[in-house]
Amino acid sequence: MSTTPTPFTADDLAARMRHAVESAQAAGLDGLLVMPGPELVWLTGYRPTAITERLTTLVLTADREPTLVVPTLERPDAEGCAAASALELVDWTDGQDPFSVAAGLLGGTRTLAISDSAWAMHLLGLQDAAPGVAYRSFTQALPMLRAVKDEAEVARLAAAGAAADATYGEILKVRFAGRRETEVAADLARLLRDFGHEQVDFTVVGSGPNGANPHHEAGDRTIEKGDAIVLDFGGLMHGYGSDTSRTVSVGEPSALVREVHEVVRQAQQAGVEAVAPGVPCQEIDRAARKVITDAGYGERFIHRTGHGIGTTTHEPPYMIEGETQPLVEGMCFSVEPGIYLPGRFGVRIEDIVTVTATGGRRLNATDRGLAVVH
Amino acid sequence: MSTTPTPFTADDLAARMRHAVESAQAAGLDGLLVMPGPELVWLTGYRPTAITERLTTLVLTADREPTLVVPTLERPDAEGCAAASALELVDWTDGQDPFSVAAGLLGGTRTLAISDSAWAMHLLGLQDAAPGVAYRSFTQALPMLRAVKDEAEVARLAAAGAAADATYGEILKVRFAGRRETEVAADLARLLRDFGHEQVDFTVVGSGPNGANPHHEAGDRTIEKGDAIVLDFGGLMHGYGSDTSRTVSVGEPSALVREVHEVVRQAQQAGVEAVAPGVPCQEIDRAARKVITDAGYGERFIHRTGHGIGTTTHEPPYMIEGETQPLVEGMCFSVEPGIYLPGRFGVRIEDIVTVTATGGRRLNATDRGLAVVH
Repeated sequence: MSTTPTPFTADDLAARMRHAVESAQAAGLDGLLVMPGPELVWLTGYRPTAITERLTTLVLTADREPTLVVPTLERPDAEGCAAASALELVDWTDGQDPFSVAAGLLGGTRTLAISDSAWAMHLLGLQDAAPGVAYRSFTQALPMLRAVKDEAEVARLAAAGAAADATYGEILKVRFAGRRETEVAADLARLLRDFGHEQVDFTVVGSGPNGANPHHEAGDRTIEKGDAIVLDFGGLMHGYGSDTSRTVSVGEPSALVREVHEVVRQAQQAGVEAVAPGVPCQEIDRAARKVITDAGYGERFIHRTGHGIGTTTHEPPYMIEGETQPLVEGMCFSVEPGIYLPGRFGVRIEDIVTVTATGGRRLNATDRGLAVVH
Repeated sequence: MSTTPTPFTADDLAARMRHAVESAQAAGLDGLLVMPGPELVWLTGYRPTAITERLTTLVLTADREPTLVVPTLERPDAEGCAAASALELVDWTDGQDPFSVAAGLLGGTRTLAISDSAWAMHLLGLQDAAPGVAYRSFTQALPMLRAVKDEAEVARLAAAGAAADATYGEILKVRFAGRRETEVAADLARLLRDFGHEQVDFTVVGSGPNGANPHHEAGDRTIEKGDAIVLDFGGLMHGYGSDTSRTVSVGEPSALVREVHEVVRQAQQAGVEAVAPGVPCQEIDRAARKVITDAGYGERFIHRTGHGIGTTTHEPPYMIEGETQPLVEGMCFSVEPGIYLPGRFGVRIEDIVTVTATGGRRLNATDRGLAVVH
């Protein structure tokens, strides 16, 4: 289905680590503490078998080589990561205090960025062991660290988007009426894997009134003729994310479903058309929201318009009122307005969009009209 | 295979929440902040679809009803949780500052326990929004909050243990030689599910030299005749964990494998026999470690002897040097000594044990001898 891209090399990853330190310095920080999770994968290729209470952290500061602190038990795994030759490894053994080991590497550091999802237990341990250091979350201090994707990354996101589009093409052919949401969700998961995803993150099938809860995944409800159904699915392929939504109708849609769907379609189009380098993120939200508000459904669009995507399916930049970060070529994010009528149905349409010199380029290309399924 | 246990009721969960507040007060704290994860499931039955950057937190203090702060988007899901009728729900909308919402609920709170795996981003936001509050991790402040299991919980752990034992019984019948570790791991996962697990957490198949890395999961290595293989597998059944290890030999074992296996078997037996109410956790580690050290392999037993188990497969109490917490009736944990010979093989034997008035009762009952597989 898809060719495997060339893996990122130790040199590629060393360049990312240098970029991270430079970004931190530009933001007035002395460096970064990176815990297991998406940033660690992005910077080193290292993904511990499990994220546990045992401290693993990558220390990135200007005055030393990138240093990965790992439990002794996990050292052999860490030695196998893509960035290993560009890393100093420091291990600690059960019974040792890992926080003093990490604190010993911080030198004259005053302020560090720390992974959003670092464990509070670890942050508290570090705050105790190195009381002179202040911490700021990546989202707060370096929100755009991974936001601008290079060509190789956009190519991976495009490939994941194409696989999600192929999934949508196939799901239109399955039977909906009389089956449970969970059965259609299982079809979506199988198709994403068939088309090359190694990880399925979500398979939302929100039928009828369930579609009015934007965070409904899929439940036991049996789909009925006449239902509008929100389909929202994605995951990771070659380490990069897909995320697309379409709303379909089982049999002929009602006039109201048609009307609401058309409003959302126009809102999504307006959001995508607003994309250009230099435009603040909040303008994408405003452009999509204006269409929905003007149509009288403003109160029923109860979430932000979009979120970034990369090695995770949910990351900065966020397309939300108050986010003044200007768009930069290479940023990739969702544009996904919706309207939710409690007790009745919901409609959402979503594409991943990347910022180019000339505007937004969609990485999803399936028809955005209201498809009728059976 | 197994009967579904009666679900915990809102009253059961309200009692757990009261117990948590009382435990916090006994530890000199004013309450708890519980984030999505095992403690939140244990206290409320609530498990958000995804753990994201959006703040969800349960505020438990003596001076107010248990209050769950949730994103507006996720309020319908929260309203469906088992403890809902015992909770006040407070929601916040994208664009609002969730930290000031949570901080507004803290009143005169001075010190709070916070979930180990709470996101650092959230802790930093709370530290900013309520600068007068100090935080301590659950492991640091309330390590034994969930450690003592009641009868209904031990029954669930025993049922999960029996399912893991049934899995071991079946895996002895499959072919090992000539297949990849990952294929045997897939068999283990399938069997755990067949015997009632809803979640598989790990399926370690460490064959030959891979067995000498205690954190190796399963890889592409093809299993050979003569290999010693560490099998370590578990997951969740009806919300409670299983975790057992046995080491098997593909065909006749060498004299060295036999010798090392017998040392580990005796060490594990000594660890289990040391279990009794009032005994400090570290004594379990010492008892097992002494057997291995006396046999000359002390340097090759490179991890602690055990960890607690409950709604997670890895939690306090830890059987490790320095842990002086006395054992209490109802505590459940692993006893899993091992010996690891780099480049050659590893041996580990593990049972879950619960503390009774008269000593340790194993929740795994399969033979601990060195089984020969084909």
